[in-house]
Amino acid sequence: MSYDKKRAQDYAAQHNLPEFEGVYAKSPQLANTNQKYHRKLIPSLEEAIKASGLKDGDTVSFHHAFREGDKVVMQVMKTIAEMGFKNLTIAPSSLLNCHDGLLEYIRSGVITKIFTSGLRGELGEAISNGVMDTPVQIHSHGGRVHLLQTGELSIDVAFLGVASADEFGNANGSHGALSCGSLGYAKVDAQFARYVVVLTQELIDYPNYPTSLSQDQVDAVVTVDEVGDPSLISVGAARLTKNPRDLMLARIAASVIENSGFFKSNFSLQTGSGGAATATTIFLGEKMVEKNIKASFALGGITGPIVDLLNKGMIEAIADVQSFDTVAAHSLRDNTAHTEISANEYANATSKGAFVDRVDVVLLSALEVDTDFNVNVLTGSDGIMRGASGGHCDVAAAANLTVIVTPLLRARMPCIVDSVNTVVTPGQTIDVVVTDHGIAVNPNNPDLEKRLRDAKLPVTTIEELRDLAIARAGKPDPIAYTDKVVAVVRYRDGSVMDVVRQVTP
Amino acid sequence: MSYDKKRAQDYAAQHNLPEFEGVYAKSPQLANTNQKYHRKLIPSLEEAIKASGLKDGDTVSFHHAFREGDKVVMQVMKTIAEMGFKNLTIAPSSLLNCHDGLLEYIRSGVITKIFTSGLRGELGEAISNGVMDTPVQIHSHGGRVHLLQTGELSIDVAFLGVASADEFGNANGSHGALSCGSLGYAKVDAQFARYVVVLTQELIDYPNYPTSLSQDQVDAVVTVDEVGDPSLISVGAARLTKNPRDLMLARIAASVIENSGFFKSNFSLQTGSGGAATATTIFLGEKMVEKNIKASFALGGITGPIVDLLNKGMIEAIADVQSFDTVAAHSLRDNTAHTEISANEYANATSKGAFVDRVDVVLLSALEVDTDFNVNVLTGSDGIMRGASGGHCDVAAAANLTVIVTPLLRARMPCIVDSVNTVVTPGQTIDVVVTDHGIAVNPNNPDLEKRLRDAKLPVTTIEELRDLAIARAGKPDPIAYTDKVVAVVRYRDGSVMDVVRQVTP
Repeated sequence: MSYDKKRAQDYAAQHNLPEFEGVYAKSPQLANTNQKYHRKLIPSLEEAIKASGLKDGDTVSFHHAFREGDKVVMQVMKTIAEMGFKNLTIAPSSLLNCHDGLLEYIRSGVITKIFTSGLRGELGEAISNGVMDTPVQIHSHGGRVHLLQTGELSIDVAFLGVASADEFGNANGSHGALSCGSLGYAKVDAQFARYVVVLTQELIDYPNYPTSLSQDQVDAVVTVDEVGDPSLISVGAARLTKNPRDLMLARIAASVIENSGFFKSNFSLQTGSGGAATATTIFLGEKMVEKNIKASFALGGITGPIVDLLNKGMIEAIADVQSFDTVAAHSLRDNTAHTEISANEYANATSKGAFVDRVDVVLLSALEVDTDFNVNVLTGSDGIMRGASGGHCDVAAAANLTVIVTPLLRARMPCIVDSVNTVVTPGQTIDVVVTDHGIAVNPNNPDLEKRLRDAKLPVTTIEELRDLAIARAGKPDPIAYTDKVVAVVRYRDGSVMDVVRQVTP
Repeated sequence: MSYDKKRAQDYAAQHNLPEFEGVYAKSPQLANTNQKYHRKLIPSLEEAIKASGLKDGDTVSFHHAFREGDKVVMQVMKTIAEMGFKNLTIAPSSLLNCHDGLLEYIRSGVITKIFTSGLRGELGEAISNGVMDTPVQIHSHGGRVHLLQTGELSIDVAFLGVASADEFGNANGSHGALSCGSLGYAKVDAQFARYVVVLTQELIDYPNYPTSLSQDQVDAVVTVDEVGDPSLISVGAARLTKNPRDLMLARIAASVIENSGFFKSNFSLQTGSGGAATATTIFLGEKMVEKNIKASFALGGITGPIVDLLNKGMIEAIADVQSFDTVAAHSLRDNTAHTEISANEYANATSKGAFVDRVDVVLLSALEVDTDFNVNVLTGSDGIMRGASGGHCDVAAAANLTVIVTPLLRARMPCIVDSVNTVVTPGQTIDVVVTDHGIAVNPNNPDLEKRLRDAKLPVTTIEELRDLAIARAGKPDPIAYTDKVVAVVRYRDGSVMDVVRQVTP
């Protein structure tokens, strides 16, 4: 007898190593055929929540790839509320107008704390009016990963809606009828959460691929009637806006980039979404084709016009953390040069390497810019939260050229002000502000100012833009706040950049 | 003045949150253009080792995707030895004949402990003869990830050779002239190691994709003259063996699978490499085409004949943890249905979901099988270590049908024995043993025995095979061992399955 079981047992005992206690001792799921194959498939959301071990005081998370079409957050929170849970923290990667219904769960004590990139609609208004006792933590997209790394944000259960999944949890956002594109934010939750629930409208035969979320990250799979409505991710495939002001802003922004010194072979860009941004992408693309200047990569939230440049061979690769329309979602599915990246790969300041670190040119929007070039993308001119931090401060900090595009006035209120209501992105990281009444270059970038003046672009100063805005709209009355802090604006590195106070009723 | 910096600072201080200390306080790499772009690019291996903070007593790891063509392990250990480090643990995913040179570093005290799936050649012989004071820990491919999860194996610095990388560390094994295919083992190291060094022969323009290893996992990138020789991964594209015994074993094995009850639409399979295994894949493929039985997926180490079945539409998908030849490596590069999986997704017993959990049929080899169906794939008939645990016990534990293929005798030594020298895979997980002198079915699977007998296959008993082996070769003399333990065989769940003792000189 060569094999001596006792010898192995004795060795284990003497060396404080685990003894062999049977083939299935630590993998009991393999001893039962039903468990082996179907252990993750849970017949209802309620049962998945029970299986997750969720308890009062825990943190649940969600992603926002379906944007205004999201059906997961409200569905899950309704179930959680009906099950009687209280005092939960919710940590969606962002919140949109479709999440107004959360107000009910805040009022009833189901939700007592929120981490999010953005707040809008009735929810933003109610929180700005002090409905919550604990301030909301507003983070950037990169900053959210940083908070997960430090452990300040610790997700107990992640509820992740996907376009397709198999019963083991291999899932993606790009394949299937429900295609929403990149699951860049969900990827981080799948990595960090203690328990991961995938929600899908339809199960795919095993194995599903490609895998944005992998079977070794997923605990439970639930089939639900509705995960999301991809048609509400954007208002449709990006078209050229017909808004004359947006077209004008876009023309100037494209010229600023063209003359910035960064418009050369192998440059990289992030242009985002929205009317002016999309138009800028289109105008810049025309210049790229005309001068045969190819970009090495496009980054960020991706739209149809960026995909169009990829297809024309004018962009070598797309790094997609969020697909902003169906064209982008389908391109991610079909084109190997269009790849999905996580929020950590995208923008985390303390990642081992973020794509924002290597982006040359970024186009960003603003609700307000002040004479220090600080940018507010969160609170409206009435002090109410109606925006999102997003990747704004992440990419501004890292890009070589950060261009803010904003009208001088919006709804008769100045967008260029003495001091923004809320600082999300520090002025130090902004290079140039493009308005429909002139361009202001940050004094910390005199070379850029010279280049733009040499190109005969309408360069003025930020103070002149402020004066012009006040001359046209009058100086707005200061917003009246109470002392109660309703939200804390965290910078990408987790530090406190600003606080948002309750507006006086 | 709306923005009040002091208000934010006070809030942070009062609530024990970090104060904003500047845009680059926690991302200083962004403040310097050279650092921002080139911080990971280190001009020599020696400088990368210095940058890693490696110290005496640490653990360094490697992957074995280049198999006998690997040039990384010896190159790194030579540099480490020259730098004067001592008392290191090395944790390659496996060791091959090309690593015989490590013996020098064991003798000089540079290496004092080893975790590996396998040991062969002069190194295996020397260790079996007691050259090391501390026993080698032999793990399975899945078990290695388990040991990383429990923290028993903790990697300080991973040195990962790749086929292509950019200067930020985005890397893969499948693209470029050096294509070795899947980096399934390296993916785990990139996730778990404290510091990750990528070694490449050529830098690709940023961003490199697809990314088996991602920029947010990689600390340093070093360009070296030689990472590996892909031509030595296998002896070439798999051809049908001309060895008559292998052909006979393959014919029987294919018939066993055909008649096992598992050969039906949507079955899944893992067939491995080696002459008999490759021939079995080819013969089984002929039966699949003939009867139009398509497989849902093929798993594991992947060879050309599996790729051929994918290309013929007879296999829906390939889950590839290691590419065993150039055909497989190129298929991984070119075919979206051929996907790369990590060792955790492949085979870890305590993964949230492993592919082995869902495999129907697996074909495995053996050095010895005993009358309890226990399998030895590690020590030769002389007691010397000349094999590897690999995924053997992982997939045997999980598969619905585990087929062992072995000749009755090998070099005039019985392969069917009373008791194996070393148990790697417990007999409980083996269903059938196919030899060139008959088939033995595990008595714990009477249904299978009936099916094979009904199909007129040459079914006998394991005892009869043992008797026949002894009748032909004589009863071998027992191996003489000392009491010194030279290796500990860990089961996939980390438990001690067996120990290997020093052979008596």
